[in-house]
Amino acid sequence: MSTIGFVLYPRFTALDFIGPYEVLSRLPGHRAIVIAESSDPVPAEQGPVAVVPEFTFGNAPALDVLLVPGGPGQLAEMGNETLRAYLRTTAESAALITSVCTGALLLGDAGLLGGKRATTHWLAYEALERLGATPVAERIVRDGNVITAAGVSAGIDLGLLLAAEIAGEEMAKAIQLGIEYDPQPPFDAGSPAKAPAQLVEVMRANARAFFGG
Amino acid sequence: MSTIGFVLYPRFTALDFIGPYEVLSRLPGHRAIVIAESSDPVPAEQGPVAVVPEFTFGNAPALDVLLVPGGPGQLAEMGNETLRAYLRTTAESAALITSVCTGALLLGDAGLLGGKRATTHWLAYEALERLGATPVAERIVRDGNVITAAGVSAGIDLGLLLAAEIAGEEMAKAIQLGIEYDPQPPFDAGSPAKAPAQLVEVMRANARAFFGG
Repeated sequence: MSTIGFVLYPRFTALDFIGPYEVLSRLPGHRAIVIAESSDPVPAEQGPVAVVPEFTFGNAPALDVLLVPGGPGQLAEMGNETLRAYLRTTAESAALITSVCTGALLLGDAGLLGGKRATTHWLAYEALERLGATPVAERIVRDGNVITAAGVSAGIDLGLLLAAEIAGEEMAKAIQLGIEYDPQPPFDAGSPAKAPAQLVEVMRANARAFFGG
Repeated sequence: MSTIGFVLYPRFTALDFIGPYEVLSRLPGHRAIVIAESSDPVPAEQGPVAVVPEFTFGNAPALDVLLVPGGPGQLAEMGNETLRAYLRTTAESAALITSVCTGALLLGDAGLLGGKRATTHWLAYEALERLGATPVAERIVRDGNVITAAGVSAGIDLGLLLAAEIAGEEMAKAIQLGIEYDPQPPFDAGSPAKAPAQLVEVMRANARAFFGG
């Protein structure tokens, strides 16, 4: 049985977490658990959504797979020594260390991405680089036992990849069919390479204010 | 300003709701609200996720867009007269009546899909037909002011389509880029037409026990 642990913090982006959780919590014979610094409900970025942690950093079991989602709350967690210590200790024994979106910046802040190829939200590549990683503009990047996914919705793709790793391709395909993941976006603007150039520039300018740099 | 209302009930599927909510709650100048029968936190299908309704059926404002997600809890809501009455009344004035996954069965149970072309989770086509609709095996189906989406993850595609309807294509593309929705599923098994035939058969047999028929 594999234990997959999702580490949440206030103002995580709900879809960063729910995408892979919806996939991985459906794996028969394995368990997906939610872990946070305290046992208080953790509010998502968007108001009414909250998640009740099943474990705290103090009592969580060892993980086979560590997954850190992103979200605007990531910024406030940078330099959180309690979180850093938890991530470092957990990463020592976890088979896979993974993130979605700006969750990668928290892995980096804990010193887990030094010299690694990794990805994050496209607006956070520079922030990732400042933490010692080599940013790669791909949907999912694997370097050794570290697997990082791009922004927000990339967590669904990561979830299916992890499901196959943990329980085999047939099970991953069954879950994909169960959640009818046959995406048909009405527009083709989901990456900076595909979206209108002017839109990309406006969002880059806004993001500099957020991530610094 | 458009008001987009998400109607939740116990054991809704988190991704059915979070997919379109993550898109539509980012529309500047509009509001996405969560509505339920009572003001108690509504637990999702998967344990630790809960959503605190911002309105109840009794005090919710009129909606421009009604959105009903699906999930295993849908079955227990069939025949719920309070929900039926809320959906009927709301649909009278809403510009758009929409659903994700088996949320369509609740629209059907309220008598809102009679004679309409509609879609739902692929395992629920027969159940949808018994409610008077004509099931269509497409990702998103529009018939008049009723827009239904396929299973679970189809809610993200629906969300972007609604975002464009409400605020224009440029805004929808900005949100798509913000959530980096450039899907790259590691497998191509997300619909019954694409998945291995044996897997489809096993899931159909299991579903008959759930939906009846």
